Amino acid sequence: MAHPIKPSGMRTFAFIAQDDDPHQWREWMSRDLGPLELFVYPDIPDRAIDYVLAFRPPLGSITKLRGVKVVFSLGAGVDGLADDATIPPQLPIVRMMDDGLIEGMTEFVLHAVLAAHRDADDFARLQRAHRWDHRDHKFARERQVGVLGLGKLGGATARALHRINFQVLGWSRTPRQVEGIECFHGAAGLATMLRRTEILVCLLPLTPATERILNATLFAQLPRGAYVINVGRGKQCAIDDLVAALDTGHLGGALLDVFPEEPLPAHSPLWDHPKIRITPHIAAMVMPRSATKYVVEQIRGFEAGRALINLVDRQRGY
Amino acid sequence: MAHPIKPSGMRTFAFIAQDDDPHQWREWMSRDLGPLELFVYPDIPDRAIDYVLAFRPPLGSITKLRGVKVVFSLGAGVDGLADDATIPPQLPIVRMMDDGLIEGMTEFVLHAVLAAHRDADDFARLQRAHRWDHRDHKFARERQVGVLGLGKLGGATARALHRINFQVLGWSRTPRQVEGIECFHGAAGLATMLRRTEILVCLLPLTPATERILNATLFAQLPRGAYVINVGRGKQCAIDDLVAALDTGHLGGALLDVFPEEPLPAHSPLWDHPKIRITPHIAAMVMPRSATKYVVEQIRGFEAGRALINLVDRQRGY
Repeated sequence: MAHPIKPSGMRTFAFIAQDDDPHQWREWMSRDLGPLELFVYPDIPDRAIDYVLAFRPPLGSITKLRGVKVVFSLGAGVDGLADDATIPPQLPIVRMMDDGLIEGMTEFVLHAVLAAHRDADDFARLQRAHRWDHRDHKFARERQVGVLGLGKLGGATARALHRINFQVLGWSRTPRQVEGIECFHGAAGLATMLRRTEILVCLLPLTPATERILNATLFAQLPRGAYVINVGRGKQCAIDDLVAALDTGHLGGALLDVFPEEPLPAHSPLWDHPKIRITPHIAAMVMPRSATKYVVEQIRGFEAGRALINLVDRQRGY
Repeated sequence: MAHPIKPSGMRTFAFIAQDDDPHQWREWMSRDLGPLELFVYPDIPDRAIDYVLAFRPPLGSITKLRGVKVVFSLGAGVDGLADDATIPPQLPIVRMMDDGLIEGMTEFVLHAVLAAHRDADDFARLQRAHRWDHRDHKFARERQVGVLGLGKLGGATARALHRINFQVLGWSRTPRQVEGIECFHGAAGLATMLRRTEILVCLLPLTPATERILNATLFAQLPRGAYVINVGRGKQCAIDDLVAALDTGHLGGALLDVFPEEPLPAHSPLWDHPKIRITPHIAAMVMPRSATKYVVEQIRGFEAGRALINLVDRQRGY
């Protein structure tokens, strides 16, 4: 079934993404699609809207719109969309998964894992203390890196880490095979993987099952001195447990790119924790110059009657 | 021509390397070679010495020894050896080039380049200021990295950077070809490469021609905001010029692993420079557990009459 656009040829968009720049999106989308109307929440007129571009939209904000055909998430994470029960179940929600997102995430995680691998945080501390302390290092082939989540982002990241010689262990909810990666699944598999993981990367989707998955119980299963990198979702990390595990010295360090509350409030004590590196949710940026190609391609396919890809499974939650 | 060891079978070594641990070297060498005598400078008896293990030996310290067959440098750099005119020209000097050295250097440079690529220093500054500032990022395929020196270390590093998608430019004194790398040589080639280099990695040997090669003239040819990584030799960088180029904002940052004087004195102002990352000459560690294999293999080959490899060219200086 094809979904022809209105005779006027002018598609209408609602933009409900407070942290993103609607002007850039309008500009890049119209380069590919021609003239379009893009209304920015909350200033959306009471008219039929073809498509919604959304990231963490206010609860119920999409439901009020008329005529919506597809909702495009501007992030890989769809919390605020998959769990908004007011959105009709038959309305398709498409997760952002442009190649740029995978590429950006892969490069960020390579940077973060290599920094942990070569003790960059320790050397920064030594620099502040004006201390010249040699130390031996391991080679990547001697280092075990565990990746939680083997979906598009986790799988690509695990493969990239493997290509630069790390011993990569991967975990997913249901069994998966990734070439070159030792794969684990389920609760028993998680315990086995954690025991060996020197550097842990979280790239899971946020669901009720993964909320606070990075907690005291999990940290206790990692070997002493392990390093934790969270590039999944902020709510997946029990921050108090993380700080406690760092303060006892059980964990060696952590990099957090995501937080339960974003932006991280200026008064948060996390900013000053000596063993926590903070980046402002920049691991994988959805950049209009790259991401619009993905959205436009899906719109063209949808209007020509082809199936949408990377559809959110509302039951599963991602 | 074979070089049989003494009938007793016991080889004698002189160890002249103040920063290295003679006990570890003795232990690892004797695992492979069997019982041996290893004397640590300056306590070397007046007897025939078969082999010298040296790193930056005091001037003339090797010349005084009797019977020496080969000098093994415990570092890839041979300053203090190649330029010690008192060492007889016919005495072979072998540069350290075990696979571990190449592997360690490659992984360190990947870490340093990715950190510069993803603005790690900027995000550390923002963290100290409790500031949550988004910013777009480039992809590695959009980033031009220039590598000075395409020998064993530079070549391997350039290839590794290329494999993770960077646009890699390489420069060497004499023409070289490295697959996937855009290669330049000579003075004109250097100027062309520098104009495009956003992240510069120095992996040149130290010779009179490369001393202070990283100077104001070179920095001025880099585009504004470029990042400089020196993992070659400390004397290759004119520190005052570097600080000036950082302070005017022309350069965006620098990572220095090597210094004209090592250890870097505790009172050096470099420690506190906000745009300089300092690591204590740990990019590529010569680790006895890995490097002894290289030395032992060369000794066995030499004693069986085979040619030594990675010989220093005293004329060329490396």
